[in-house]
Amino acid sequence: MTKYVYYFGGKKAEGSSKLKNLLGGKGAGLADMVNLGIPVPPGFTITTEVCTLYYNSGMKFPEGLKEQVIENIKRVEKEMGAVFGDPNNPLLFSVRSGARVSMPGMMDTVLNLGLNEKTVKGLAKKTNNERFAYDCYRRFVQMYGDVVLGLKPQSKDETDPFEDIIEAKKKERKIRLDMDLTVEDLKDLVKKFKALIKKRVGVEFPEDPYEQLWGAIGAVFKSWNNDRAIAYRELNNIPNDWGTAVNVQCMVFGNMGEDCGTGVAFTRDPATGENHFYGEYLLNAQGEDVVAGIRTPLPINKKQKGDKKDVKSLEEVMPDIYKQLLKVRDILEKNYKDMQDIEFTIQNNKLWMLQTRTGKRTAFAAFKIAVDMVKEGLIKKEDALMRVEPDMLNQLLRPIFDPKEKDKALKSGQMIARGLNAGPGAATGKVVFNAEDAEAWAARGEKVILVRIETSPEDIRGMNAAQGILTSRGGMTSHAALVARQMGKVCVAGCGDLDIDYKKKAIFVKGKTIKEGDFISIDGTTGEVFIGEIKTIPSEILRVLIDKTLKPEKSQVYQDFALLMSWADEVRRLGIRTNADEPKQASIAVAFGAEGIGLCRTEHMFFEGNRIDAVREMILADDLEGRKKALKKLLPMQKKDFIGIFKVMNGLPVTIRTLDPPLHEFLPHTEKEIKALAETTKIPYDKLSAKVASLHEANPMLGHRGCRLGIVYPEITEMQAQAIFEAACEVKKKGIDVKPEIMIPLVGDVAELAKQKEVVVGVANAVMKKYGMEIDYKIGTMIEIPRAAITADEIAKEAEFFSFGTNDLTQTTLGMSRDDAGKFLRFYVENGIYPYDPFQRIDEEGVGKLMKMGVDLGRKTRKNLKIGICGEHGGEPNSVEFCHRIGLDYVSCSPYRVTLAKLAAARAAIKEKAGKSKK
Amino acid sequence: MTKYVYYFGGKKAEGSSKLKNLLGGKGAGLADMVNLGIPVPPGFTITTEVCTLYYNSGMKFPEGLKEQVIENIKRVEKEMGAVFGDPNNPLLFSVRSGARVSMPGMMDTVLNLGLNEKTVKGLAKKTNNERFAYDCYRRFVQMYGDVVLGLKPQSKDETDPFEDIIEAKKKERKIRLDMDLTVEDLKDLVKKFKALIKKRVGVEFPEDPYEQLWGAIGAVFKSWNNDRAIAYRELNNIPNDWGTAVNVQCMVFGNMGEDCGTGVAFTRDPATGENHFYGEYLLNAQGEDVVAGIRTPLPINKKQKGDKKDVKSLEEVMPDIYKQLLKVRDILEKNYKDMQDIEFTIQNNKLWMLQTRTGKRTAFAAFKIAVDMVKEGLIKKEDALMRVEPDMLNQLLRPIFDPKEKDKALKSGQMIARGLNAGPGAATGKVVFNAEDAEAWAARGEKVILVRIETSPEDIRGMNAAQGILTSRGGMTSHAALVARQMGKVCVAGCGDLDIDYKKKAIFVKGKTIKEGDFISIDGTTGEVFIGEIKTIPSEILRVLIDKTLKPEKSQVYQDFALLMSWADEVRRLGIRTNADEPKQASIAVAFGAEGIGLCRTEHMFFEGNRIDAVREMILADDLEGRKKALKKLLPMQKKDFIGIFKVMNGLPVTIRTLDPPLHEFLPHTEKEIKALAETTKIPYDKLSAKVASLHEANPMLGHRGCRLGIVYPEITEMQAQAIFEAACEVKKKGIDVKPEIMIPLVGDVAELAKQKEVVVGVANAVMKKYGMEIDYKIGTMIEIPRAAITADEIAKEAEFFSFGTNDLTQTTLGMSRDDAGKFLRFYVENGIYPYDPFQRIDEEGVGKLMKMGVDLGRKTRKNLKIGICGEHGGEPNSVEFCHRIGLDYVSCSPYRVTLAKLAAARAAIKEKAGKSKK
Repeated sequence: MTKYVYYFGGKKAEGSSKLKNLLGGKGAGLADMVNLGIPVPPGFTITTEVCTLYYNSGMKFPEGLKEQVIENIKRVEKEMGAVFGDPNNPLLFSVRSGARVSMPGMMDTVLNLGLNEKTVKGLAKKTNNERFAYDCYRRFVQMYGDVVLGLKPQSKDETDPFEDIIEAKKKERKIRLDMDLTVEDLKDLVKKFKALIKKRVGVEFPEDPYEQLWGAIGAVFKSWNNDRAIAYRELNNIPNDWGTAVNVQCMVFGNMGEDCGTGVAFTRDPATGENHFYGEYLLNAQGEDVVAGIRTPLPINKKQKGDKKDVKSLEEVMPDIYKQLLKVRDILEKNYKDMQDIEFTIQNNKLWMLQTRTGKRTAFAAFKIAVDMVKEGLIKKEDALMRVEPDMLNQLLRPIFDPKEKDKALKSGQMIARGLNAGPGAATGKVVFNAEDAEAWAARGEKVILVRIETSPEDIRGMNAAQGILTSRGGMTSHAALVARQMGKVCVAGCGDLDIDYKKKAIFVKGKTIKEGDFISIDGTTGEVFIGEIKTIPSEILRVLIDKTLKPEKSQVYQDFALLMSWADEVRRLGIRTNADEPKQASIAVAFGAEGIGLCRTEHMFFEGNRIDAVREMILADDLEGRKKALKKLLPMQKKDFIGIFKVMNGLPVTIRTLDPPLHEFLPHTEKEIKALAETTKIPYDKLSAKVASLHEANPMLGHRGCRLGIVYPEITEMQAQAIFEAACEVKKKGIDVKPEIMIPLVGDVAELAKQKEVVVGVANAVMKKYGMEIDYKIGTMIEIPRAAITADEIAKEAEFFSFGTNDLTQTTLGMSRDDAGKFLRFYVENGIYPYDPFQRIDEEGVGKLMKMGVDLGRKTRKNLKIGICGEHGGEPNSVEFCHRIGLDYVSCSPYRVTLAKLAAARAAIKEKAGKSKK
Repeated sequence: MTKYVYYFGGKKAEGSSKLKNLLGGKGAGLADMVNLGIPVPPGFTITTEVCTLYYNSGMKFPEGLKEQVIENIKRVEKEMGAVFGDPNNPLLFSVRSGARVSMPGMMDTVLNLGLNEKTVKGLAKKTNNERFAYDCYRRFVQMYGDVVLGLKPQSKDETDPFEDIIEAKKKERKIRLDMDLTVEDLKDLVKKFKALIKKRVGVEFPEDPYEQLWGAIGAVFKSWNNDRAIAYRELNNIPNDWGTAVNVQCMVFGNMGEDCGTGVAFTRDPATGENHFYGEYLLNAQGEDVVAGIRTPLPINKKQKGDKKDVKSLEEVMPDIYKQLLKVRDILEKNYKDMQDIEFTIQNNKLWMLQTRTGKRTAFAAFKIAVDMVKEGLIKKEDALMRVEPDMLNQLLRPIFDPKEKDKALKSGQMIARGLNAGPGAATGKVVFNAEDAEAWAARGEKVILVRIETSPEDIRGMNAAQGILTSRGGMTSHAALVARQMGKVCVAGCGDLDIDYKKKAIFVKGKTIKEGDFISIDGTTGEVFIGEIKTIPSEILRVLIDKTLKPEKSQVYQDFALLMSWADEVRRLGIRTNADEPKQASIAVAFGAEGIGLCRTEHMFFEGNRIDAVREMILADDLEGRKKALKKLLPMQKKDFIGIFKVMNGLPVTIRTLDPPLHEFLPHTEKEIKALAETTKIPYDKLSAKVASLHEANPMLGHRGCRLGIVYPEITEMQAQAIFEAACEVKKKGIDVKPEIMIPLVGDVAELAKQKEVVVGVANAVMKKYGMEIDYKIGTMIEIPRAAITADEIAKEAEFFSFGTNDLTQTTLGMSRDDAGKFLRFYVENGIYPYDPFQRIDEEGVGKLMKMGVDLGRKTRKNLKIGICGEHGGEPNSVEFCHRIGLDYVSCSPYRVTLAKLAAARAAIKEKAGKSKK
């Protein structure tokens, strides 16, 4: 019989983190805590495997599950000395989801399960608190009705039907707060809830606790596939087939009185990474109250409270409990060797831990914690590298407000409120009040700040589309804060001074009104909120490395970053190059540590200044003579470009791609533009128009471009080669080393490469002879159409290096134009047809298989063939890892992604080593 | 030491047909004839291998060649009792090319080699004919100057400089014919020729015979890569690296008097295939005179002469020689078991054979000869199938003139001349007078007849572009006739009544004038030439099979065709299906023997009649409801289409592809069209225009099409499936068997197929339940993008069959849009970058490798996976053979290509068997 259920409680749990895939994150954490001697309410975990079986068998539970669940309930009963469904001594359960990785708030939960008309009385007697018991009962029926029985608002216009009943009751009783509802009121609410369920859903509310339990377990499994969970997984690349576990755990109550409470905490500061305990709590409350952001929670200790005098921290209110928590913090950090995010409940002065998991953190915090923990001897350098997700580097590089502009804004009174610094960075944009608007406005190119009272999982897409998120309610662990940190979004949360009116689409604050479409600026590092636009400037790291306006020793952020990157350099095997078309880009990349240029697109140079005139002259020429004349004009300009780049790169290899785009890209297309060009060129309009028409292509992506241009018009390649080699000689003459690598694009057959190589070698020899010097150069090719990968053994006979152009290779291998895929690609990803967007991350099964074939065939012919990648995938961490795995020599990415690629390369090397040592 | 030179002469030659690749066709034939005891002037063959070595070593002869050549010259000298370069008893040589396959007239030849100021006197003495000797000398210097020393017209406007000197001499001497030139005239001409060479080329004419010989050998090798030879190879798919052999042979003279002559003959009639000796000869002439078409030759025998009283056949003039020729014919046919094309020279009443090779023939002749030879017991059925090139079937199906219209034309006096029936079939078109015009006019869509006095190798492209070719000079073996037969072009040759004036661009005939651009009609089966257009009608075979206007027993052509096709059916393993979108096409294919439909494109049905309105309504609908409403209108129409097709196919499998093209293909694009549509649909112009714009795609080939449509709009697939299954049930109800195969296009990932399959299966079950019957159906997919081939193992989990869509697979694998490739593809083929056009013939190295991968991976998952091809390659013989080799189950092609594919499939099976029996 397969083991479907794992017990946790007493001195020892059946599971542990080793079974995380089976138990989910929450279940594994609970088991670990039990094993570490930390107080945890007993319970059991139904494995993720059951979820998969449930879906594969048409929503049926596997055989044997029932027996195992009942057996485990008996164990809890025994341990707690109470009985599930016993009217005199009832045991209550919470039923929660728990996937392999945390998906906060995405799936469903049922609390207080086991209550019915009989047990509620038992609970009242047992706790000697009738109001508490009926409040629990009211909450249970409401939650169960929503989550398990599906009684939800029927349209967008309808409000929550249960809340409507409560509101009506409060009106009737002329009271404002839930707390003012009496026992009789609560009993009446339960009755009304049940009646509504009967009427709308058509079923009686189940009295049998076991029936309640199975309903709740099924509902949790079902919630794995609700819309918001699917959207979340899509955004975070979580496979749909992982499934969720279900944790059934004995209830403890933080809302039984003033000696009760609940809270969440991080073992270190999740925003800055500083090594101090950081958390929030509420007295006399259930855990959902903290997380849902309904009441703004209080700081956990004095350090965090700062100079606020009107609030009391847990450290002050319950010093013993706080000390116990510090001990738990210590045990957990030593055990997990990472910052933990914990949930606890205090029931009648007793501390219970309900969850521990690796804490989400800002990029700043991630870097600091990783570096600190190495210094503290907790982890090794390799561990530190594995702790920092490459994408986090984007956050570290994110802009901040220009200090001068911000100062001005502060002085002119633009600062209107301060909230929690929930997501670092600075953002400015137009105010929108809901997620749909955020998406729509962003889609038309507007920068927006999403302003919400609080956010919910339904808002994820809007949050993603916005520059930043601002909420008036909720703490550092509210939904908005958690999700923003994870997305790397700027976020100010719980800014209570703001009065947000969705209907009027306005924020009222200190007598001022901010309307939809008005500009605001938010600083997620400080929590400040400003009216109007404030100019942003580069991050500290950029100011140290690129602008040189900040000294390295003045920036702790830079210090941590630089140290970690030096560890990455020690570990990685992949070289990191950059895609750069001009000296300025190249110098930024070099500052970030690029080890060469992997792609210099010569056509970008063709658009600059009045060069386009010469380019057009070349295209419009009637014959070879005319083309050569125009090319002669371009030669000195291209040569100048290359001189600039060679100087900056100072001996590092520079891969230069010959002309790639179809010629019509250089010509105007509208009648008006053509007329204008006719005037400047003195070419008759009709002739010009006919030329434009004759160059039109049905599918330009698959047209007359790449080496096909250089083959039909070898004079173009000739001019480019001449510019490259003359520039190389000039620069070398000045004592600077030069390593040009000439790359022929869109090769599909070795004969194409051979023809172009002949041209380049001819020019190279002539130029080197003229200058009387030798240049160390290579000639290679892009591998960017399937045929090139398939015939790589042939192509390697001529090519000294390969560079995978995965943008085009993806387009051709999938038969999918990136420009046109918008119409269906999102649908594909959302519906699980593709696990992810293949233009963002290399499609390993398809494109990747071709790449592997290309590498293997190429090296079969030429053992030391140098192979890289210069598509945009070169800066995407999963793709970098894939490139490492298939044995590429380097990846090339945009300058601002160089450090990200380095980190990803280091992590790939570490993973490989770990994999090997396992064998 | 490698053997570079092979001797032929005496009783035994060193080579034979077994060494054809090394000796070339001519060399092998000469060796064979020597071995068969047929009189051949002795000589030797320098192998094709030398040609390759020559090119690979920068135009140098390999070491040892010189010695071997000298040794063989000594053998000829000994055999002939004359000495090369001996002033008293000179031996003269011809130096000719000879590739593996015949490339008539494409490469260079030098005759009378060995003559100089001394030997010419010896020749005069030896032959006792000074004029003959100097005429030979004049011809030699002229030919050598042209071919070896490269003295050619310097521009298109210049006429041949040697001919100019001759013309001047004739003017000076006031004579008209070459024959009237005296010995002194000829001597003077030689002097002038040499002076011109010295002046223009800058070299003295070589007097040393050995120097002459090496120059000539080098010139022949060089001529392998002249423009026309390259063009010819391109047209005939002959690899560039085969090279040519050089045959150095003792000269014999057909122009030494009236007991001399020369001729060419076929062992059977090359036009009709009838089993009688067929040839032409000229008295007192050199062989080049016959082939070049300068003098129109005479019929070889009485049968051929017919009722012409003014000419004498060879049979009548030299009956002994004719008898000897008949014997040679007999020996050769028995030896080669195929129709031979022979060249002979009669010198002073002695017959010498100069060449034998497999004779080119019309398709009609090829079928007849193949079938006859099986009947005669000469060859086996398999041999017969290998004798008939599949492309020849196109000729057999070529139109003829509508008998009624032709009769009318005859009666109204439109028939203006009669020439030789050199290339069967009927053609009508506008008159053009040179090859460039033929190409240019054809390129803009005009049908043209190329009219030339005589054609030359430079005209090949123009001949290819024309509907037909008409010449006023030359016989059945002239260049025009040979090339036209090979190309399968309609050709009337040697129509002496026409007076063609290139300058005036006019034909003058019997007082009438036909100008450039006027229509003429030519009948290549009868030789008739008509003024004006005459309607053409289908060939005999089509009239038997399709129109049923001709009884099978009345058509010998059909009889031979049907018998041969029945043999093909016995042998082939590949199934042959057809691409057909409507019942009429399907019924034509069935008449040709198609065994099913391999591709029925449902979108073609969408364009018919007013269906497009419903299609547009569907596209323009704002929501699912609107789309469903429009689809409901389409349903009965599609259903009707399928009923028609199922009935015609009568139980044969019918592969139906779901909607494939992007939706914008169904919408208008110009402002005017959109306005018109706005009026009929009552949709505001702006909205309509916006919709059209929103559907625009940058690269429609890679856009929202294929299954991507059915996935985003499953209601379309649903409607199509419903139409298919309702039609199937209706037809089956009438007792006709139905085998639909639903094919999902553009699948790149198994998940796409799975999603669409779900829709189709759902509809199928519902419809079958409604009708209460079972339909035997399959669901499969196109393999038309690289990712599908790469992941075929996954896709085969869902697919019951694969069909390679090689049109799109070629476009994506090569990254090449067929619509746009015009700009460079021809350049690629002409310059040898591609060996052939990959859109015409499967690119085996690239696309083919992916196909093989697809087949292997697919069958790994599903052993009995049915695999076919439905791209246009399915009707191209080489591609059909490739499909056979990689194990496909069937090919599908257009109806008119079904028999061609059958024949190609049979030949592939025979080749495979032969290959296996070799092992």
